[in-house]
Amino acid sequence: MNPASEDQLPDIADVHLAHARIRQQVRITPVLNDPLMDQAMGCRLYCKCENLQRTGAFKFRGASNAIACLREDGTAGDVATHSSGNHGAALALAAHLDGRTAHVVMPENSSRMKVDAVKGFGGKIYFCAPTNASRAQELEKLVQAGMIPVHPYDDVRIIAGQGTAALELEQEVPTLEQVITPLGGGGLVSGTAIATKAWGVEVFAVEPEGAADTVASLQRGEIITDFTPDTIADGLRAIVGIRNFRIIRNEVSRVLTVSDNDIRAAMILFWQKLKMLIEPSSATVIAAIRNHPEIFAGKKVGAIISGGNIHPADWLELVKP
Amino acid sequence: MNPASEDQLPDIADVHLAHARIRQQVRITPVLNDPLMDQAMGCRLYCKCENLQRTGAFKFRGASNAIACLREDGTAGDVATHSSGNHGAALALAAHLDGRTAHVVMPENSSRMKVDAVKGFGGKIYFCAPTNASRAQELEKLVQAGMIPVHPYDDVRIIAGQGTAALELEQEVPTLEQVITPLGGGGLVSGTAIATKAWGVEVFAVEPEGAADTVASLQRGEIITDFTPDTIADGLRAIVGIRNFRIIRNEVSRVLTVSDNDIRAAMILFWQKLKMLIEPSSATVIAAIRNHPEIFAGKKVGAIISGGNIHPADWLELVKP
Repeated sequence: MNPASEDQLPDIADVHLAHARIRQQVRITPVLNDPLMDQAMGCRLYCKCENLQRTGAFKFRGASNAIACLREDGTAGDVATHSSGNHGAALALAAHLDGRTAHVVMPENSSRMKVDAVKGFGGKIYFCAPTNASRAQELEKLVQAGMIPVHPYDDVRIIAGQGTAALELEQEVPTLEQVITPLGGGGLVSGTAIATKAWGVEVFAVEPEGAADTVASLQRGEIITDFTPDTIADGLRAIVGIRNFRIIRNEVSRVLTVSDNDIRAAMILFWQKLKMLIEPSSATVIAAIRNHPEIFAGKKVGAIISGGNIHPADWLELVKP
Repeated sequence: MNPASEDQLPDIADVHLAHARIRQQVRITPVLNDPLMDQAMGCRLYCKCENLQRTGAFKFRGASNAIACLREDGTAGDVATHSSGNHGAALALAAHLDGRTAHVVMPENSSRMKVDAVKGFGGKIYFCAPTNASRAQELEKLVQAGMIPVHPYDDVRIIAGQGTAALELEQEVPTLEQVITPLGGGGLVSGTAIATKAWGVEVFAVEPEGAADTVASLQRGEIITDFTPDTIADGLRAIVGIRNFRIIRNEVSRVLTVSDNDIRAAMILFWQKLKMLIEPSSATVIAAIRNHPEIFAGKKVGAIISGGNIHPADWLELVKP
């Protein structure tokens, strides 16, 4: 695979290969269903708990696959990326487990917990202004210095890796009718769409209203880049990637949007029923299902709960009335 | 089974029968291992996550088995119990799912969240003074009024039901060398000891230093009842039951104790590594393993994480420096 070619998109075989590479390193996360949650949601909901993935988010799948590909290719050296947090932490750990260091460009307003996680897994942090241009500039400097770039989502290895969560979900609950994931840069949903293509489920994605760049891009027919996100879902502020956009346009049934208040209510509901704190980004899928009974009511729905990296104090602050 | 006879103790067949009765109703909870948690703990730790059980605690297993036994016996009517919270909530839901009401005597100082849970699952609450005598008196009134008592732990149906968690753990990780559980009234550890007897693992239990009545009772050779607990582990303040004590004396390798500060540190570690908030009672097992490398170092240890019913605000309050 040449991750640099924009024409190249991963297929189901790439997702299976990714799973074979990473399955000894990632956690096969649990899929939880709860009858009382189903009552509250109006559908049969199967939560693929990537909040319980190593590093606390699905991102460890893609990062592990990217590093495993470098190892297979015999490519030595440190890696570099930009990330609001979860991809950075995931790449830091995946690199560390392979004897490398990950150099991570992070926006200054990244959550403290995510900064600590990147450091804790041995990553090296470079702060930048919280804009897409600033991120890209800082990363370019690291690449010029000889580091191997691993883009957080616009990369076939990452997309294939993220698709492995849906692969496991399919194996565990083969009778699902729909699958829904959060959408930031599009790594998770594009991997999910590819992994599930032969399965015959409908794939949905969710953006926060304050970071609905993909919805706008789909309407315009091309990627909008002049976009300033404003949402509590810190993991979903990125602009959709080129490969990701192509896959979403072709394979995803619909991209839904939810408000920050919908997200807050979903965080509370998830905690009440399933006793786990999840990130605002993760809660978007719960919020979207609740907002759209005309799509989901009575269906058997798989929801990828993308991450649980939120400090309890921050969780409380976000959900307080 | 006659739950009233103190001579009668459940055996492995009762645990298997319990599992057959309740497996469609309880969640087969995930078992999580994490390499970085292992590093921090100095052993290979497999956490049986009963904090993700329905109602947020293992208690739903025993309660479901008790109600299923009543149904099998054709015994109609409401049930009554006393509980600091998790058993009450579990019995409330199990009774509700069988078309009954659970009447629950709770100490006035029960955590708000546990009170809300009992109510939320349709249980009826009777507050009492936070003493064992007061609990027993209030419960006796309900029994005199015709309700069917379901003791929170000193009951063969409950013990057999709680043992099903260990049964699932054995099925998932058959190579474990040791299993450890919290110890309050002794329902979980006695069920675990019976479930694992033929498996050849060592069984350990943990009490908070401020509620180490079982350790004292084992030393004296009989159950001490004049005991006032003082610990943050609200689920472990009960006095060990008669049947539970007999099983513990015969089948449990050792009862360890941990301080409230050990518990706090374990709650933080569990959250850092596994991204879940657990009750102080649950964290005792993590604390005990850390305190006793001479027992656990390098071993393959199964830990039953008993419950996750703690409000994030209460969790923060407990762990703050």
